[in-house]
Amino acid sequence: MTFWEKSDTIIHMKKMNTAPISGTEELLPALQAKFDSLLNEIRKVYRAHGFQHIETPVIERTEILLAKAGGETEKQIYKVVKTAETADEADQALRFDHTVPLARYVVQHLNDLSFPFKVTQVGRNFRGERAQRGRFREFYQCDIDVIGRGELAIAYDAEIIATAIDALQTLPLPNIQVRISNRKIIRGLLAELLLENSDLSAKVISIIDHAEKVSSEETHSALLDLGIDAKEVTKIEDFIAIRGARAETIGKLRELGIDNEVFAAGVQELDEILRELETRGLGNQVVSDMVIVRGLDYYTGMVFETIVPEYREIGSICSGGRYENLAENYTDIALPGVGGSIGLTRLFWIMQNYELIHIAELCAIEVAIIPVSELDAMAAEQLARDLRNEGHVVDVVRGGKNLARKMKYASKNAQEVVVVGEKESRSGKYQIKNMLTGETVDLAQWRSQKF
Amino acid sequence: MTFWEKSDTIIHMKKMNTAPISGTEELLPALQAKFDSLLNEIRKVYRAHGFQHIETPVIERTEILLAKAGGETEKQIYKVVKTAETADEADQALRFDHTVPLARYVVQHLNDLSFPFKVTQVGRNFRGERAQRGRFREFYQCDIDVIGRGELAIAYDAEIIATAIDALQTLPLPNIQVRISNRKIIRGLLAELLLENSDLSAKVISIIDHAEKVSSEETHSALLDLGIDAKEVTKIEDFIAIRGARAETIGKLRELGIDNEVFAAGVQELDEILRELETRGLGNQVVSDMVIVRGLDYYTGMVFETIVPEYREIGSICSGGRYENLAENYTDIALPGVGGSIGLTRLFWIMQNYELIHIAELCAIEVAIIPVSELDAMAAEQLARDLRNEGHVVDVVRGGKNLARKMKYASKNAQEVVVVGEKESRSGKYQIKNMLTGETVDLAQWRSQKF
Repeated sequence: MTFWEKSDTIIHMKKMNTAPISGTEELLPALQAKFDSLLNEIRKVYRAHGFQHIETPVIERTEILLAKAGGETEKQIYKVVKTAETADEADQALRFDHTVPLARYVVQHLNDLSFPFKVTQVGRNFRGERAQRGRFREFYQCDIDVIGRGELAIAYDAEIIATAIDALQTLPLPNIQVRISNRKIIRGLLAELLLENSDLSAKVISIIDHAEKVSSEETHSALLDLGIDAKEVTKIEDFIAIRGARAETIGKLRELGIDNEVFAAGVQELDEILRELETRGLGNQVVSDMVIVRGLDYYTGMVFETIVPEYREIGSICSGGRYENLAENYTDIALPGVGGSIGLTRLFWIMQNYELIHIAELCAIEVAIIPVSELDAMAAEQLARDLRNEGHVVDVVRGGKNLARKMKYASKNAQEVVVVGEKESRSGKYQIKNMLTGETVDLAQWRSQKF
Repeated sequence: MTFWEKSDTIIHMKKMNTAPISGTEELLPALQAKFDSLLNEIRKVYRAHGFQHIETPVIERTEILLAKAGGETEKQIYKVVKTAETADEADQALRFDHTVPLARYVVQHLNDLSFPFKVTQVGRNFRGERAQRGRFREFYQCDIDVIGRGELAIAYDAEIIATAIDALQTLPLPNIQVRISNRKIIRGLLAELLLENSDLSAKVISIIDHAEKVSSEETHSALLDLGIDAKEVTKIEDFIAIRGARAETIGKLRELGIDNEVFAAGVQELDEILRELETRGLGNQVVSDMVIVRGLDYYTGMVFETIVPEYREIGSICSGGRYENLAENYTDIALPGVGGSIGLTRLFWIMQNYELIHIAELCAIEVAIIPVSELDAMAAEQLARDLRNEGHVVDVVRGGKNLARKMKYASKNAQEVVVVGEKESRSGKYQIKNMLTGETVDLAQWRSQKF
């Protein structure tokens, strides 16, 4: 049995293009059920860690969305055309991530929230990106964040990573590895090299962010092209090569002999976060790596990415970091935060491509009940009601006298099948057949085992 | 303890309007948790009945959305502005319901689906309606539909209503009542009265649809104003007054002595659906009522609405019906369907207004663990890990030496609190305090009871 067996192919004339628009996705039911179960596992872990779920609107004021964002975002944002009834409202657009609406939400509800505010958002975001395989314009993101009021303990940086690891380990993936660094360390290094000029340092950070996607020669000449001395370029190259376990990395960083406060604070935070993760038994899943800087300019402290070492080419599957001022464009209150995000739509697409999801094993319905004729339908519905009350997913296949057709439907869609005829409904004794193994057992026995 | 107790009110300057846009909604975390639990109960019932979950994109081609819809919809639709990267794509807009995208989905995936296709969609839809209390522009709808290929047994009309009743009964509502009719009955009546002209009959149906919102005099003169004879107006008025239990209604309808096929078919279907619901033990929750016609012109057979008799003024909380040709604008294949929908965003708003949801009892976190100092933090995290593995929702309150502040946070957000100090972490013996009752018990005892 395979759920994906094609039904009788029929020829019909489409009057219109019915494909979903490019960059959006819709799944067939069995695959959707798998997606839902992964989403639920992630939600369950987030919830178990005490992250409170919120949902913000999909449509936001454009001025809120673009208060901080730069050119790239503005080019990709989906604006919404006002209708006759909303003509007098402010300009509106679709949210492109969860972070910006979260900042607005926290400012709006400041006095009704408790801090540190551990919060999760799971839903679709929208970006008008270039159409490309594996690039989505509508995609699920599963975010966690902790927002402090005035201050936020470094312990929450470790909690974000620990929660992300717990969540990722529910997915059908090989071993994962979280790569951690701290933006203060690179900032401190650049200050030491007298490259503190913000425009130049942003360019250096961008080159480091791309270093793994290009050859080391390209990185070298890109840095030289910025007008940086060869000696200093070597220092940057030596720096971004530092990676490994906590003791080793922290040792190497301290050996650099860089004497400024920002650098020292970054190393100290990195050490603290790695120590906590080790103590919490997650030492094998994390590594520090100075090449991790994260392009987004709102990160100010810890930054992380997550890779699947066995499939390194897929890039980061969960990223995040700390931002000192979540909502500086909306309020003058300091709201430091730390967060991370799993992009499940893309990750699910990858898992399908790597055959980590086995479609043939998926089945949409647990039990299909087939009344032989409509005369047996009420006995079938009563049995369905009883089984549903015991927690089973039950479909009663109704209509028509064609038993073979009903059996075919059931064998395609259900794990187990019960046929209800006159004899069965009179005696109340039913058999249940497993469509995968072909094994048939007494329903009473099956129920007592499942209950 | 109340979760909604305001934290210290602070004065801060907002730099921007951070309210969600008019007609959209965002809930505080405890209320969101309640909303989520209701949504999950509905999903669980839909799933238990064998409805397969699908999700279609929020953004659709405008030509798909407007293929059938009339003027009202077109005025309320949110069009999306193309970005630099999507400039060459077709015009796009946000879906305004689940039915239109479902029609497109079924045509697109026709050969990969099994029929009858029992399907559920739960998600947000978008309409640029006039801003008004209790009217939402972004709202959750929880839909179920059964789609047949070529034909679809009347049994599925009953299954839609039975599933809707099961779902609604999970919500914190007083008794509900489903009011059922059939569009064929009114069509048959109008044919009998020689008002078969589609324009005129559409107007009569619209007047009937509004009859409960205006006085009987207004309905009377509205019908006369259409140029209908007083005698025939009386017949229509007598007809829409027919309501009650199955035997009574069906009897009265047959006594009208209307002799046409469409009328007879409608009465026959209504009888069949009501009989099945009676047999399935749902006779007390359903009533037939000829005033129910549903304004939407795609319904062609059974139509239903659901009221809460105790709060009749809130109108229908779950409606639906049968449509003979789901996708006639997209394909020439006949795809009859029957469906229903619960508008949960509006219903949740109503339940809050009627105080059917008790906010004071809501609590976001089950257990808060408070380390006395950061020296006790790792023991606290280890304990949290163990409790999470047993299925509990656990927050560890980290950072700062101010125990009173951590206690205050915990008492606001959690049902139970465990304090972890040096003595506790050394002995491994913890106490757990219920913040509502003030009762303290050994954690080991609490765990063995909960496990």
